[in-house]
Amino acid sequence: MSVDMPSPLLGGRLPHLLYGGDYNPEQWPEEVWAEDVVLMREAGVNLVCVGIFSWARLEPTPGTFEFGWLDRVLDLLHGGGMSVALATATASPPPWMAHRHPESLPQLADGTRLWQGGRQQYCPSSPVYREHAVRLVEALARRYGDHPAVVAWHAGNEYGCHVPACWCDVSAAAFRNWLRARYQTLEELNRSWGTDFWSQRYGDWEEVIPPRTAPTYPNPGQQLDFRRFCSDALLECLTAERDVLHRLTPELPVTTNLMGPYEHLDYWRWAEELDFCSHDSYPDPADPGSYVDAAMAQDLIRSLRGGDPWLLMEQTPGRVNWRRRNVAKRPGMMRRWSYQALARGADGTLFFQWRASRAGAEKFHSAMVPHGPLDRSRTWDEVRQLGSELSGLDAVIGTRVEATAAILVDWPSWWALELPSKPSGDVRLLEQIGDWYRALHRCGVTVDFVRAGADLSRYALVVVPNLYMVERETATRLESFVEGGGTLAVGFFSGIVDGFDQIHLGGYPAPLRRLLGVMVEDFRPLAEGEQVGLRFGDGPVAATGSLWSEIVHADGADVLATYAEGELAGLPAITRRGGAYYVSTRLDEGGLLGMVLALCERAGVRGPLPVPPEVEAVVRSGEGRRILFLLNHGGAETPVAVGEGAEVLIGTPADGETITLEPGGVSVIRLT
Amino acid sequence: MSVDMPSPLLGGRLPHLLYGGDYNPEQWPEEVWAEDVVLMREAGVNLVCVGIFSWARLEPTPGTFEFGWLDRVLDLLHGGGMSVALATATASPPPWMAHRHPESLPQLADGTRLWQGGRQQYCPSSPVYREHAVRLVEALARRYGDHPAVVAWHAGNEYGCHVPACWCDVSAAAFRNWLRARYQTLEELNRSWGTDFWSQRYGDWEEVIPPRTAPTYPNPGQQLDFRRFCSDALLECLTAERDVLHRLTPELPVTTNLMGPYEHLDYWRWAEELDFCSHDSYPDPADPGSYVDAAMAQDLIRSLRGGDPWLLMEQTPGRVNWRRRNVAKRPGMMRRWSYQALARGADGTLFFQWRASRAGAEKFHSAMVPHGPLDRSRTWDEVRQLGSELSGLDAVIGTRVEATAAILVDWPSWWALELPSKPSGDVRLLEQIGDWYRALHRCGVTVDFVRAGADLSRYALVVVPNLYMVERETATRLESFVEGGGTLAVGFFSGIVDGFDQIHLGGYPAPLRRLLGVMVEDFRPLAEGEQVGLRFGDGPVAATGSLWSEIVHADGADVLATYAEGELAGLPAITRRGGAYYVSTRLDEGGLLGMVLALCERAGVRGPLPVPPEVEAVVRSGEGRRILFLLNHGGAETPVAVGEGAEVLIGTPADGETITLEPGGVSVIRLT
Amino acid sequence: MSVDMPSPLLGGRLPHLLYGGDYNPEQWPEEVWAEDVVLMREAGVNLVCVGIFSWARLEPTPGTFEFGWLDRVLDLLHGGGMSVALATATASPPPWMAHRHPESLPQLADGTRLWQGGRQQYCPSSPVYREHAVRLVEALARRYGDHPAVVAWHAGNEYGCHVPACWCDVSAAAFRNWLRARYQTLEELNRSWGTDFWSQRYGDWEEVIPPRTAPTYPNPGQQLDFRRFCSDALLECLTAERDVLHRLTPELPVTTNLMGPYEHLDYWRWAEELDFCSHDSYPDPADPGSYVDAAMAQDLIRSLRGGDPWLLMEQTPGRVNWRRRNVAKRPGMMRRWSYQALARGADGTLFFQWRASRAGAEKFHSAMVPHGPLDRSRTWDEVRQLGSELSGLDAVIGTRVEATAAILVDWPSWWALELPSKPSGDVRLLEQIGDWYRALHRCGVTVDFVRAGADLSRYALVVVPNLYMVERETATRLESFVEGGGTLAVGFFSGIVDGFDQIHLGGYPAPLRRLLGVMVEDFRPLAEGEQVGLRFGDGPVAATGSLWSEIVHADGADVLATYAEGELAGLPAITRRGGAYYVSTRLDEGGLLGMVLALCERAGVRGPLPVPPEVEAVVRSGEGRRILFLLNHGGAETPVAVGEGAEVLIGTPADGETITLEPGGVSVIRLT
Repeated sequence: MSVDMPSPLLGGRLPHLLYGGDYNPEQWPEEVWAEDVVLMREAGVNLVCVGIFSWARLEPTPGTFEFGWLDRVLDLLHGGGMSVALATATASPPPWMAHRHPESLPQLADGTRLWQGGRQQYCPSSPVYREHAVRLVEALARRYGDHPAVVAWHAGNEYGCHVPACWCDVSAAAFRNWLRARYQTLEELNRSWGTDFWSQRYGDWEEVIPPRTAPTYPNPGQQLDFRRFCSDALLECLTAERDVLHRLTPELPVTTNLMGPYEHLDYWRWAEELDFCSHDSYPDPADPGSYVDAAMAQDLIRSLRGGDPWLLMEQTPGRVNWRRRNVAKRPGMMRRWSYQALARGADGTLFFQWRASRAGAEKFHSAMVPHGPLDRSRTWDEVRQLGSELSGLDAVIGTRVEATAAILVDWPSWWALELPSKPSGDVRLLEQIGDWYRALHRCGVTVDFVRAGADLSRYALVVVPNLYMVERETATRLESFVEGGGTLAVGFFSGIVDGFDQIHLGGYPAPLRRLLGVMVEDFRPLAEGEQVGLRFGDGPVAATGSLWSEIVHADGADVLATYAEGELAGLPAITRRGGAYYVSTRLDEGGLLGMVLALCERAGVRGPLPVPPEVEAVVRSGEGRRILFLLNHGGAETPVAVGEGAEVLIGTPADGETITLEPGGVSVIRLT
Repeated sequence: MSVDMPSPLLGGRLPHLLYGGDYNPEQWPEEVWAEDVVLMREAGVNLVCVGIFSWARLEPTPGTFEFGWLDRVLDLLHGGGMSVALATATASPPPWMAHRHPESLPQLADGTRLWQGGRQQYCPSSPVYREHAVRLVEALARRYGDHPAVVAWHAGNEYGCHVPACWCDVSAAAFRNWLRARYQTLEELNRSWGTDFWSQRYGDWEEVIPPRTAPTYPNPGQQLDFRRFCSDALLECLTAERDVLHRLTPELPVTTNLMGPYEHLDYWRWAEELDFCSHDSYPDPADPGSYVDAAMAQDLIRSLRGGDPWLLMEQTPGRVNWRRRNVAKRPGMMRRWSYQALARGADGTLFFQWRASRAGAEKFHSAMVPHGPLDRSRTWDEVRQLGSELSGLDAVIGTRVEATAAILVDWPSWWALELPSKPSGDVRLLEQIGDWYRALHRCGVTVDFVRAGADLSRYALVVVPNLYMVERETATRLESFVEGGGTLAVGFFSGIVDGFDQIHLGGYPAPLRRLLGVMVEDFRPLAEGEQVGLRFGDGPVAATGSLWSEIVHADGADVLATYAEGELAGLPAITRRGGAYYVSTRLDEGGLLGMVLALCERAGVRGPLPVPPEVEAVVRSGEGRRILFLLNHGGAETPVAVGEGAEVLIGTPADGETITLEPGGVSVIRLT
Repeated sequence: MSVDMPSPLLGGRLPHLLYGGDYNPEQWPEEVWAEDVVLMREAGVNLVCVGIFSWARLEPTPGTFEFGWLDRVLDLLHGGGMSVALATATASPPPWMAHRHPESLPQLADGTRLWQGGRQQYCPSSPVYREHAVRLVEALARRYGDHPAVVAWHAGNEYGCHVPACWCDVSAAAFRNWLRARYQTLEELNRSWGTDFWSQRYGDWEEVIPPRTAPTYPNPGQQLDFRRFCSDALLECLTAERDVLHRLTPELPVTTNLMGPYEHLDYWRWAEELDFCSHDSYPDPADPGSYVDAAMAQDLIRSLRGGDPWLLMEQTPGRVNWRRRNVAKRPGMMRRWSYQALARGADGTLFFQWRASRAGAEKFHSAMVPHGPLDRSRTWDEVRQLGSELSGLDAVIGTRVEATAAILVDWPSWWALELPSKPSGDVRLLEQIGDWYRALHRCGVTVDFVRAGADLSRYALVVVPNLYMVERETATRLESFVEGGGTLAVGFFSGIVDGFDQIHLGGYPAPLRRLLGVMVEDFRPLAEGEQVGLRFGDGPVAATGSLWSEIVHADGADVLATYAEGELAGLPAITRRGGAYYVSTRLDEGGLLGMVLALCERAGVRGPLPVPPEVEAVVRSGEGRRILFLLNHGGAETPVAVGEGAEVLIGTPADGETITLEPGGVSVIRLT
C-alpha cells in the first residue's frame, strides 16, 4: 500500500489486498488449529475474523471470562503471519442471558417471543443485553488491544439480520423515550402523526406503543417513526461498542458487516459511525441477473462512505445453506464475483467461512476448507488460485471508483413508501431502483448512490426513483443540481409527503412542481397485468408502462411522451423541463433503456469503454494510476479494445490494443 | 319530498335526495372549516356525517368532555344550510381506554391481542367499552339532540369490519352468559352441540369457552353458536346506544352503515333495530363485473327493512386505499354507480369523505375535495355535477323498487355451511348466491332478498341457493309458497341440518323431501377442476356441473336433466315437482342462465323492459308515479325503447319512444 | 383360524377375518343400540371398537366413573355375537381437565395454546394427563377385563395426529429430563449438539428448552433430539397404559391405530411395544395413484412387526370429511381397497365408523350405516357384500406376505434430513421412497420395509433412499448384505451425518465410501425446474435427473451412467461396485424404472406372476398354502394366467389356467 494513499481499511497497516475468512476455531479441537494456519498460508490468506460467535466460550457464566483459548489462537495466527479482525463477540448472547433475563428476548408484533437456541435472540433496546455486551467488549479491548495480530475490530455481526425490530415492553419504553427526544411534547407527536384521524390522539406518553398487531393499519406516522427508532436502537448497540473501542484502542479501526440495500437499517446513518464499511454479498448463482444486483449492492456500500475503499467481509466459495435450493457457484464464478467487488471499490475479500463446520445450522454452507479431502476439491483449488492472484494486485489498494452518475436512495422515504394503504401496494423501492440501475448498467455506466439532501454537484446525471418523501432540503439540492447543468430523472410517486408522511398540499408533487414543471392531478395505479402504451411525439406506441400511471399536467415542462390509450390517452407520460425529467409510469425494459440512453447522452455520461452487454468494465483510479477491471459474465470469448500502453495485471496478455476475455473470464489492466 | 310518502330517512325532514359525505373537521385547522362550507354549497351537499372518529377529541381524558369545537362546527354547518348526521363517535375508543383497561382489547383465537394505534380496538363484549360508549352517547344526545343542524344519528361505524369476533376471557364469560340464556341447562347445551362426539361433554359452565385455536376442528355447534353470539354481542353495542338516543331524542332516526352481504353479522336482526339502513359500497373498478355485485349488495340492503328507502352512506369518488392495487373509477363511473344506488332504492348518496386527509391511513382514499387544486380536478367536477343533478330528482324520494323475484339468504345457515369438515370446503354461499343473482340480473330481473321463515306470498319466483340449515318454519313457508302457485328453485346441499347443525335424519334433504319430491342418497363432491356433463331429456350434453354432484332419487319429481357421465350417468341432476325445482350441482354460466330463463318464464317474472346485457333497468314506484332508471355499463351507445309519455329527468331526451344511452350513460325517466 | 398358525390379532380367539368398525353408542339413544346389533349381524360384522371417545361419559367429573351404560352396550353386543376391541378412552380428555389443569394443554412453538373444544388437547408430557389416563385405564381393565365380549384393547387413538409435539414449560422440563438421561452430562450435550456454533453453549441444564420460535434456525441437534423426545413422550403415554393392561389383563392383546408412514413417530420403536399393529388408511379417491401409496403404507405397517398379520382399523366406506374436497370412493373401490389390505397382510378390516354421526365434526364422514334409508344406500349394499365375502376367507388368516425386496426407512434420519438449512430444502424422504416404491410396484415386486441396523440377509434386494444419517452399525449391515451376495441401491445424500447430525468427515459419504466405491466431492442441488441429462456408457441421453446432482469420484466403482451436460458433464451419475449401486440424482420415472428392472434382474427378484401395470398381484403363504390376491385397479377387463390347480375363493372362476379380472375387480385364489 502506498503511503500517499492509505486505505482506510485496517489503519493502512497491510501491504496487500485483504484475503481470508471468518475463523471459528472453537468449533474444532486444538490440534486442528495448527493445520489451519498451515493451510491459510497455502491459500494466501492474510486476514481472518475471529470470535464472532465466541461469547458463550469467552464468558461461560456471567462475569467470568475465559481468554486462555483465544490467547493461544491469536498467538498461533500471529506466528503464522496472519492478521486478525477481532470480533466483539456480541452477535449472539449465550443462553444464560435468555434464561436469567427473559425480558431480554425480542418479541414480534403479535407478541410471539423469540427464544434462545438459534442466534441473535436479543431485544435491541434491552439494557441487559447492552450492558453485558459493553462489559465484554471492554474486557476484549483491554486484553487484545495491543496484540500484534489484531488489526481491526469486527463489531457484532450482520446487525438486525434476524431481529431488526422488537415490539416488547422494553422496546415500547425505549420507543417512548426516543419519541420524547424527537418531539419534546405529546402535542407535537399528535400533530406529526395526525392522530386526529381515527380517534388516535394520545393524552399520555404511556399510551404510546410500538405498532403491534392491531385491528387494521396502525397510524403511518407511528409506523414510520418505529422504523426510524428500530434502526437507531440497533445503531446504539453498535456505537456503544464502538465508543469503548475508540476509547481503549484508538488506533484500531472499527467496522461491521453490512448487507447491501438492507431495508431495515438506515445505512447512511450507520456508515457515519464506522471507520470503514464491510459488506456481505450472497447473490443467487441460479439467477442469471444476480451479478447486476450484486454490483448495485457494492456500489451502494462504496457510496455509504463517499467512495472510500471497503471490505467484502463475507461471500461463499460455493453454496449457501439458507435458500430453498442452494445452487452452487459454477466454475470461475467465485473468482469473477470476487473481482467484481474489487472493481467496485473493495480492497479485499473474505469468505464465510474458513473451515466448514461439522455441526450446527451452517454446516452445509461452503467454506474455504471443505469437509472432504483437499486434494480432490475444486473449491480449495479456486481458493488458492485467487489468493495467489490477489497478492500481485497491490496497485489496486486505495484507488477509488470513477462515477459521474448517481442514484438517490433514502431509507425513511423507502419505509414510508412501503407502508400499507397506498394507491398501489406493489410499488416497491428496490424494484424501481433496480429498473434504473439495470438500465444504467446495461449502458456500461458506473453508478454511485447518494443520500437525500446531499450535494450533487460532482455528478452529471442523477436518478431519483420513487422518492415518495421529500423534505425541503432535498428539493433545494435537486433544484441546485439542475440549475448547475445537471441532468435529473425523477420517477413517479415522488415528492408526495413530508418527513412525517403527511401530504404536501398544493398539487402533487408540491416540492418538485416548479423543478419538474408538472402538476399531478391524481394517481391511476394499473391493475395486475395491465399495461398502457406510450407514444413519443406523434410516433407509434414505442414503449409500455405498467404498475402505475398518473394524470399529469405540464406546467412549463415539455411533453416527451404521452399515454396512448385509455382514460389518459393523449396526456403527458414523460416530461422534461430543462435538465429535469419526470417519468409517470413504470417503463418496460426497452423503454427505460431508451430513456437512460437519452439521459446519458444529454449528461455526457458514459462507461470507461464500449463493452458488450454481459461484460462489466469499471475503472478505479488515484494518484496517477487508472486500473481497468473487465469481467465477462457471458459464455462467449470476447475481445475488448483497451487502448495502448495497457499493462495486464490479470488476464490473457493483450494482443496489441485488444484483450481477449475468456468465457466467464476476468482481466485487470493498468491503463496508466 | 312529498308529504304523502315520507322517506324513513331523517324523519322526512329533507326535501331533496341526500348528498354529501363524512366530514372530519378535527383533522383541519378551523380556518379550513369556513372554506369547507362554501365548497359544500358549491357541490350541492345537503348532509354531512360528523364526528365518526372524534371520541379522542370529545373526551380527551376519561369523563372530561370537550364540546366547544363541535359546537362551532355544527353552528357553521347549520349556517351554511347543511344538515348533519351526527356520529355517536364510538367507532374507535381513544388510546387511554386500551392503556387504562387493557382487558378491553380484543383477542384472536390464537391469543393474539389487538392493540391501539389503528382503530376499532375494543372487545365487543367489553363492559368497559360499552359503559364508556353509552356515557359518551348520552352526553352527545343531551348536548346536540336539539341542535337545528342535526337530523339523524350515525351510530358507531362499520360495526365489526375489523373485529367481528373476540376470543378473550371477557368474551368467554359473555359467551357463557349468552349460552345460558339460550340453553338454560348445561345438559341442553351438551345435547345441542352433540358433545358426546369426541369426549366434549361439559360438566360445568365454566369449562365452556369460545372456539379458540384447538388441535383440530372445534365442535361445530360451539362454532355456530359463537358466530351467533358475536353478531349479537356487537348488536348489543348498537342497541345500547340506540336505546339512549331513542330515549333522549325520540324524534331523531338512528342508523349505522352496513356493508352489504357482510358475513359476520346477521343483518336481518340488525336491520330490525335501525330506523333506516345505510350502506357502504366499494366495488372494485378493476373488476368489470363488480357493478353486478354492487347491485346485489344494494338489493340486499333494501330488502333488510322490507324495501324501505335507504342511504348510500359511503362510496369513493375515485379510489380506495385498502386493496393491493387501488384502480380508480373511470370517468362517469362514479356518477353511474351513484344512480345505481338510487335505482335500487337509495334516497341519497354520501361519500367517504368530504376532504382528503393529509395524514393517517386513509390519506390516499379519494375524497370529494382532493389534495390538489380544485380548478384542475375532474373528481371535483364530477362531484359538483352529480350534486347539481340530484337536486332535480325529488320525485324519486320515497318510491319503492318493484320486484317479483327473491333470493333467500340466512346468516346462521351461511355460517354453518362454511364451517370446516364439510363434504366440500369449496361450497361458499356468496358464490352460489352470486351465480343465481348474476343469471337473474342478466335476464333483467330485479331481485329482492328474503329471510328464512318469511312470508313469500308477494313473490312469483323464489330462489334458495344452498340453504344448508333449514328449520321447520322455513320448510313450511316454502311449501305454502309453492302450493300458492309460486315457482321455487332450491340449490344443492340444502335442508341438511337443523338449527343446531345436526343432521335431519330420514334421507336428505329431509325437511324438503316432500316439497321437492326427491331423496338424496349421498353427496359426490367433485374434485378441483372436475366437471360433469348434463343432458336434458334425451338431448345432447347441454350444460356442465362442477364443484358438487349428488345421487338423487326422484320420489315424485320429474327429472328435467340427468348426469351424462361417470358414476352418476343417467341419474337425476335437475328435477321438478310442480313449481319446486331442485338443482343438484353447480351449473355453468350458460346452463344456469337457461335454467333461470325457464324459471322466469314459468313464474311470469320479467324485467321492466327488454335491455341488452350491460344495461340495467330498474323501476321505482309509488303513489301514482313510476320512475325508470337506465344505466349503461357498456361502452356502446345503446337505444332503449321506453314507450310513450315518458318524461326524461336525466339523460338524452327521448326521440319519440326511444331513448339513447351514451356509453357509460345514465337515464332517469318518469314513466307515469 | 387354524391352531397351528395363530394370528397375533386378538390372541387367536376368532375364527374369521375381522370385520366391523368403530362403534360410538354414546352418540345415540339406547333404543338405537338394539337396532345396531341387528344391523351388525346383517352386515357380517364380528368386531367393533367401543369407547374411543367416551372419557367424558365414563368419568363425567374427575374420579367419578359411570360404567352402567357401557355395561349395557357390551352385554348387548355380546348377546348379538359381537366381539369388542375396547378402547382405553384416553384419546381425548374431557373439558374438565383443561379447565382444572390448564397446564395440561399443549402449546405450539410460538406459544399458541391449543384449547379444549376439539380433541386431543393434552400435552404428551403432562403428568396430569398421564395420571388421569392411567387411572381410567385401570378402572376399565378391572371392570371389563373378563367381559366375554372383550377380545382386545385399543389404546388411545391415532396418537399424535394433531399434537405430535408440545413446546410448553411442562414439555421443556420433560425434554431436559430426557436429555439428561441421554447425555448424562451437559458437556456431552454441548458436544453432541455442536453448541460452539453460534454461541449456543449451555452452562446450566435449565437453559435448555425445546426449539421454540427463534430468530432463525434453532440448533439442528436440539431439533433432532426434540423430534426423538416427542416420539418417546407419546410412546410413554402408550406404554403406561399398556403396562397397566398387561398387568391386569395379561391375556388381552393391546394395539393402537398407526397411520402408515407418519412423520412424527418412530413406528419401529412403537411397534415393539404393541401386541399387534393396527392401521388407518385414507388414500384420496381423487388421486389415481393413491392406491400405490396405500400399498406402501400397508407394506410398512406389516413390516413394523416383522411381517406379522395386522388389522386395518380404519378406512371409510365412502368419503372422509377433512380434505378440501372429499371425493367419494367410486363403486367397487372400497371392496378392492379392502382386499388390498388383506393382500398386504391384514387379517381383517374395520371402518370408521359404524353409524354416521348426527352431530360433531365428523358427521359428513361416511359410515357403514348412513344417515338415510338403508334400502336405497349403495354404501350399505357394499358393506354387506364385503362382510359376506370375508366370512368365506378363513384360509387367509395368519398367512404371511412373501417378499424378497426391501426398502430401508429410518425415522431419525428422516427427521434430520428434513431439518432446514440443507443444500436443498426440497429433498423430502417420502417423495424419494415413493419414487423407488412406485418403480418396484410397477415391476410387480412386493416390498418389505426394514429398519436401520437390521439384519438384511433374508432379502435379495435392498433399496436405501436418502439415508442421510448413517450410524456405524447400519453401514456394517449394508456391507454384510452386499458381501453375502445381496443387491443394494443407495440414493443420493446418504451417509452424510452421524446420529447427532454431525458430518462424517473424510469425504462424503464417509461410512459408505468403501462399500459404494465412490467419494462425493460436493453437492450440486438443481434449481427449481432444472433437469440434467444422463448417458449410459457411450449411449445417447437416456434419462434425466432433477432436484439434485453431485460431483462423484469413482474410487473403485464402475461408472454406469454419467452426467451429459453442464458443469458435471462426463462425471459419474450412477455407479456400481459389486452389488452396491449408487444413484447421485433424482431419476425421472422412466430412468428409475429401468434402474429398478436392472436391479431386480441382478437380484433375481420378481413378482408372483406377470401382470399388467394396473393390476396388483401379491401372495400370502404359510403352512403349506399359498394364496394369491389379484386386484385390478384399471378400467379394463384383464385376463391373468394363474396356472393349474388354482382354487378361486373370490372372483370369476378360472377358465382353465386363466382368470378374468373385471374392471376394478378382485380375485383371491388358493394356489396350493
